[in-house]
Amino acid sequence: MTAAYDRLKARFARIALLGEAQSMLHWDASAMMPPGGAAARGEQLAALAGLAHDLLTAPEVGDDLAAATAGGAWDAPNLALMRRAHARAAALPTALVEAMAIANSACEARWREAKAAADFAMVRPRLEEVVRLQREMAAALAAALGLDPYDALMEGYQRGVTAAELEPVFAAYEAFLREALPQAEAIQARRPAPVPLPGPFPVERQRALCRALSERVGLDYAHARLDESLHPFCGGTPTDIRLTTFYAEADVAKALMGVLHETGHAQYERGLPAAWARQPVGEAAGMAAHESQSLIVEMQACRSDAFLGFLGGELHRAFGGDPALYSVPNLAAQWRRVGRGFIRVDADELTYPAHVILRFRLERALIEGRLAVADLPAAWNEGLHGLLGITPPDDAQGCLQDIHWHDGAFGYFPSYTLGAMAAAQLMRAARRDRPEIDAALARGEMQPLMGWLREKVHGQGARLGFQDLLRHATGKPLDPADFTAHLRARYLQ
Amino acid sequence: MTAAYDRLKARFARIALLGEAQSMLHWDASAMMPPGGAAARGEQLAALAGLAHDLLTAPEVGDDLAAATAGGAWDAPNLALMRRAHARAAALPTALVEAMAIANSACEARWREAKAAADFAMVRPRLEEVVRLQREMAAALAAALGLDPYDALMEGYQRGVTAAELEPVFAAYEAFLREALPQAEAIQARRPAPVPLPGPFPVERQRALCRALSERVGLDYAHARLDESLHPFCGGTPTDIRLTTFYAEADVAKALMGVLHETGHAQYERGLPAAWARQPVGEAAGMAAHESQSLIVEMQACRSDAFLGFLGGELHRAFGGDPALYSVPNLAAQWRRVGRGFIRVDADELTYPAHVILRFRLERALIEGRLAVADLPAAWNEGLHGLLGITPPDDAQGCLQDIHWHDGAFGYFPSYTLGAMAAAQLMRAARRDRPEIDAALARGEMQPLMGWLREKVHGQGARLGFQDLLRHATGKPLDPADFTAHLRARYLQ
Repeated sequence: MTAAYDRLKARFARIALLGEAQSMLHWDASAMMPPGGAAARGEQLAALAGLAHDLLTAPEVGDDLAAATAGGAWDAPNLALMRRAHARAAALPTALVEAMAIANSACEARWREAKAAADFAMVRPRLEEVVRLQREMAAALAAALGLDPYDALMEGYQRGVTAAELEPVFAAYEAFLREALPQAEAIQARRPAPVPLPGPFPVERQRALCRALSERVGLDYAHARLDESLHPFCGGTPTDIRLTTFYAEADVAKALMGVLHETGHAQYERGLPAAWARQPVGEAAGMAAHESQSLIVEMQACRSDAFLGFLGGELHRAFGGDPALYSVPNLAAQWRRVGRGFIRVDADELTYPAHVILRFRLERALIEGRLAVADLPAAWNEGLHGLLGITPPDDAQGCLQDIHWHDGAFGYFPSYTLGAMAAAQLMRAARRDRPEIDAALARGEMQPLMGWLREKVHGQGARLGFQDLLRHATGKPLDPADFTAHLRARYLQ
Repeated sequence: MTAAYDRLKARFARIALLGEAQSMLHWDASAMMPPGGAAARGEQLAALAGLAHDLLTAPEVGDDLAAATAGGAWDAPNLALMRRAHARAAALPTALVEAMAIANSACEARWREAKAAADFAMVRPRLEEVVRLQREMAAALAAALGLDPYDALMEGYQRGVTAAELEPVFAAYEAFLREALPQAEAIQARRPAPVPLPGPFPVERQRALCRALSERVGLDYAHARLDESLHPFCGGTPTDIRLTTFYAEADVAKALMGVLHETGHAQYERGLPAAWARQPVGEAAGMAAHESQSLIVEMQACRSDAFLGFLGGELHRAFGGDPALYSVPNLAAQWRRVGRGFIRVDADELTYPAHVILRFRLERALIEGRLAVADLPAAWNEGLHGLLGITPPDDAQGCLQDIHWHDGAFGYFPSYTLGAMAAAQLMRAARRDRPEIDAALARGEMQPLMGWLREKVHGQGARLGFQDLLRHATGKPLDPADFTAHLRARYLQ
């Protein structure tokens, strides 16, 4: 280890502390802040981001990165991640960064109006500007990093996987879905329709149940809070997790499954290697890895027959009514229901990847200049029809539904499906290594699964990229067959 | 205006944004944070403070300050305040700043134990170190600024008033109190003892009442929140106020008067000149000025006969019981009760200055080297006996009761009594300018008073120092006769 590397560690710790402050202010803005605080909060966050950028791109950083040496299983990747973060930041001219901040913010504001009016033309000029700048950013990053332009954007969210690797995975999934979806629908149609649980579900009791279930997953409320926000998320820092959810009196599943999902994210953050806190290698491995942790808790574990059996009893205790309503088949009939829909965030786990595949193809075409923004609505509708056989009635339910592109987030969408696939692969490996997992889930005990994840995933930090992390945990890189096997078992039998 | 001045404005805005982030994180730590987040929060706050210090003391700041020119009623004092902030920061060597941070933090932690054990010896060595460093800081500031050492510390909390001005003011108050306190006690003894209000007071109803009353003072909850913390305070930023209070089921006055007090602080922040937001001249004029605003609301307005008449009706509606209990005489008998006590924060407004005078004299002697830390307990007990004729049974109720010195805050205490005196002076001037104030208070309406304060005090920002602000608002510098006249009218008739 060198003095240069030590200086870099101190600098990156400072940058990480600014990130922690930003994370807290972001949580506050969503869960606590009165509306009149919004303008100042935007300026506070921009100032912190600007200071972090200045720290990352200061002239002496380049010198220290050139001089530094570090070896070993953690310091070597830590230094490599420092170099990558610096290279990404240094590749972007300040004028471009500022232009993107302005364009993204303006487009996002207009997008809210356009979505409400279901009028793509309203946002089109601003989205064109966003896409123009994203292409510029992708080109600058690509040149500096030696990547394809779209891969350079994707790397900003998940390191260690390329579009070239994704393409055949997604093509194979499309083929699988073409057969599997009609079969699943037919099987579902032959079964009894779900009988709704007896609501309304008082918010106080939902809150207590959500908290108790997140504690079962392992969340320690000496290091966490659970609050409410319009769009649920997991924020905060590894020692101070801030979960949010949204309680609907008519639908207990919304908050319940939402909190279990966010608790999966939370446990990843809690389990990151404390010895490497505030260093690049001590962070999570990326957004796809993060999504694998929320989905392994929510989709793999908590929607399993084993856990639904336990959960039904808890729900009956909390909300009463006919015990038969809380049977595994009735809960499964409503919480594992498949169907063709327009909206990604409402999709079931079988059709969700179709929404992601559509967006992956479109955003890649936009960045590579093969698709014009003006042609996006038609391409969207055609693509969705090709994947799911349905056509949105308007653009609000089509290409205007997601905030991502309008806020300048290109290359993020694949993370959702990579996470779902990784969750299935990790669950299979965990069951192999810890055969007691399902019996424990039936008793509402998550420890065998979470203990395995802590060792194999959480505790690895960002030491490994996506494919290498899967290799380390499961013995193989991404293998979508584990995901389709999971779907076959759950929906096609 | 010059380019150098424009650069300075941008820099100070950035520093202010870091301060806003610190303020929010401080509020969060007190009102929201789970205990496990404390260690990381300390590091986050230290990083933000360090970055702000770096921005303030960067080499180019000195050059710009030397080159900048600015004229006019706002820009000129703004530049002067920038120069003062820079001079104060630049006067302190980094090693001293770091040593103080460590010593203060260590002493404060030990002080908690020492106070619990009522054992001054436990904290003495650490307090000696704190005092040694404070003397060093005072000397460095005094040399750089051309002030007396104690004044240099006091200026860090309130600009525009000196110990030489305070000394005769405090001596006169001591003389006044020697006569007034026995008289007030005698008058009080002749009156009926207060009959307690019928508790318990459910927290939900207290919360609703506190919120409604703060809205009456003028607080707009589109720009504010009211939460709970162990030690109530007013935090946040001018467009996003964060009030806290502490609800005691047995005593409604605690939260009620506390929230009214903090709302006075809040309205000061809300009324600061928005055009100068995030510039030194757009901040509050200092801690004494701030305390004058909390005390004019709590002590001058809300404990007046006029407002108590209104408040009694509100309390009866909220908590029920015999209406006679809510009469002005009975409310006044409990909420305007005088007495000799050991604890500053529990003191009434007549004896409170005695506690401050004691501390002012002791801390000045400590800083000037006329008193050794080892002699502090004896000097405290002797001083309190001289002022109030009572002697604390132990140091927990004596020189260990306040956190201030043990946390490195020397020169702060005078602000409390300067604020109380200024509040009386401002109230008298406001009544002169707006004769409708008391009739409005009797209807629970604060607008006439608050409107006057907004113009005369809040809207002035930090344009004027303490004495000049009073001159501007009332036509004269600090005149303690207005305070003693207020006390005579309230307690000696």
